Amino acid sequence: MTPAERIAETLLGRRVLLLNHVSPDGDCLGSTLALARALRARGQHAVVASSDGVPDMYRFLPGAEQVVSEIAADTPFGAAVFMECSTPDRAGALAGRAVGAPLWINIDHHVSNGGYGDLILYDPAAAAVGELVTPIVQALGPIDAPTATCLMAALLTDTGSFRYASVTPRTLRIAADLVQAGASPADVFTRVYENRPAAAMRLLGMALDRLQLTPDGTVAWTAVTQEMLRASGAPMEESEGIVGTLRSIAGVRVALLFKEEPDGIRVSLRARAGVRANVIAEAFGGGGHAAAAGFTATGPLPDVMRRTLDAVQREMAAGAVS
Amino acid sequence: MTPAERIAETLLGRRVLLLNHVSPDGDCLGSTLALARALRARGQHAVVASSDGVPDMYRFLPGAEQVVSEIAADTPFGAAVFMECSTPDRAGALAGRAVGAPLWINIDHHVSNGGYGDLILYDPAAAAVGELVTPIVQALGPIDAPTATCLMAALLTDTGSFRYASVTPRTLRIAADLVQAGASPADVFTRVYENRPAAAMRLLGMALDRLQLTPDGTVAWTAVTQEMLRASGAPMEESEGIVGTLRSIAGVRVALLFKEEPDGIRVSLRARAGVRANVIAEAFGGGGHAAAAGFTATGPLPDVMRRTLDAVQREMAAGAVS
Repeated sequence: MTPAERIAETLLGRRVLLLNHVSPDGDCLGSTLALARALRARGQHAVVASSDGVPDMYRFLPGAEQVVSEIAADTPFGAAVFMECSTPDRAGALAGRAVGAPLWINIDHHVSNGGYGDLILYDPAAAAVGELVTPIVQALGPIDAPTATCLMAALLTDTGSFRYASVTPRTLRIAADLVQAGASPADVFTRVYENRPAAAMRLLGMALDRLQLTPDGTVAWTAVTQEMLRASGAPMEESEGIVGTLRSIAGVRVALLFKEEPDGIRVSLRARAGVRANVIAEAFGGGGHAAAAGFTATGPLPDVMRRTLDAVQREMAAGAVS
Repeated sequence: MTPAERIAETLLGRRVLLLNHVSPDGDCLGSTLALARALRARGQHAVVASSDGVPDMYRFLPGAEQVVSEIAADTPFGAAVFMECSTPDRAGALAGRAVGAPLWINIDHHVSNGGYGDLILYDPAAAAVGELVTPIVQALGPIDAPTATCLMAALLTDTGSFRYASVTPRTLRIAADLVQAGASPADVFTRVYENRPAAAMRLLGMALDRLQLTPDGTVAWTAVTQEMLRASGAPMEESEGIVGTLRSIAGVRVALLFKEEPDGIRVSLRARAGVRANVIAEAFGGGGHAAAAGFTATGPLPDVMRRTLDAVQREMAAGAVS
């Protein structure tokens, strides 16, 4: 019996609580929704819970309208599934609702997972937890089209549409099975990614229009100011993807986005080709990893820019030596 | 024997000319390069030819440096493979070099294919010709990593990274085999798509900054003027993706890009949700299909904009009635 089959068998006959992590993404939402649907198809009681609700972009997922963000304290569950939670408290305010459940199941693919729980399905080589959940769902019965759509959303959103380095032959074979079962990658992509507010596009336009580069073209940066938010009508959250867009410019090794927040300047860094974004961020009390890091600084925007660009040049010079 | 196996067997023992179509894309280049590499691995002579050379973004493909755009008139070939050419003349100036070859092979997935040639491998359900070429390459022997990279480029670029409606379980299973053989979707994506000139980003920024919408948010448009090209430093070709970006705005059913060319205004249309872009374009002597169409108009930019937006409103009203 595979670990996935063992989990499927263990869940049958129990009232199941499926917990998403805080700030849920497409992978954990798609995975919990698919597993809940498969359990319900077998006549089981399953509740999908998310302390932070369901972000707008994932509301189209079949079953999303049944996701709860509150549960009465004395609700009895026979099992709690923690989806993509490195520790139980990553499930947020609702984590406590699992306390009475006699069985905890921990499903994750992040190296930071703490290894808690009675049953653990952990594989850091999985491109998405959806890749680990699909065999559980398959063990419960044939996958229907709505379930396949949930799992496709999990895989597609956690792999940037099957283009991250984490993608393996297994990822693509599972995706093939899901298309066969009725999922449409095109529909999922359109629903998740092709629905951006016009204001977000205007903000992106303003930020790219103000793009600056060092003379050698290896460092690119831009800023999003409160004035730009007012002019575009977009909230600061919509600046999310801008720094990644800068990093995709030919020849750019470090990209920076300076966000003018009410309490300071939030700096997002993306790096490639041997530059360590975290080393730059750590110099300012921030953190992250080599490819993506960030920190918050105080002072006028031009000052923060100058100090940050100096630190970038130091790290690039250090990299050239090592 | 499958059609792919028959083609593999037929090519062995012949000097093979592999022809790309004019303005070659990642699918036909990746497919011809992979097939040539597999033939050479079997000790065969194979020439990959492209009348229009190899675009910069595909120069990283293994073997791209050996692609020729000129061939002496009397060069003898035992077989000519037309890759993704609906008719032989789609191979451009080099099409004539196939005349002396006693055997023509026609490999395509476009419904417009004319059905010429001695051997035909035609499947409109294939998401890419790379999907049809992979079994031929497999029939010639084990796929090595550089060959897998060429075929991955074919599949990935013709499916928008596995997210177009054309993707089938077969597409994804072949992609899985290619990753197993050493291809990296992440590397291919980065090489093809994450290498845009900074000038192109500035142009995109200017165009999005000038984005306009109808009051109901269903029609979005912007313009790229000669002045914007000068200010950004980008050539007009770099405006390519802008109209697709507009179409991805939430609620937008028709997106338009007005390009100020020396000889007139070139209008690109993208539509979804029941609006027919081709009907709008045909009213101005242009053409295309329901999702994407275009036309060229003369007159001052504001006039062309007004007339086009009127036609868009008429088509949307007609759609509302039908």
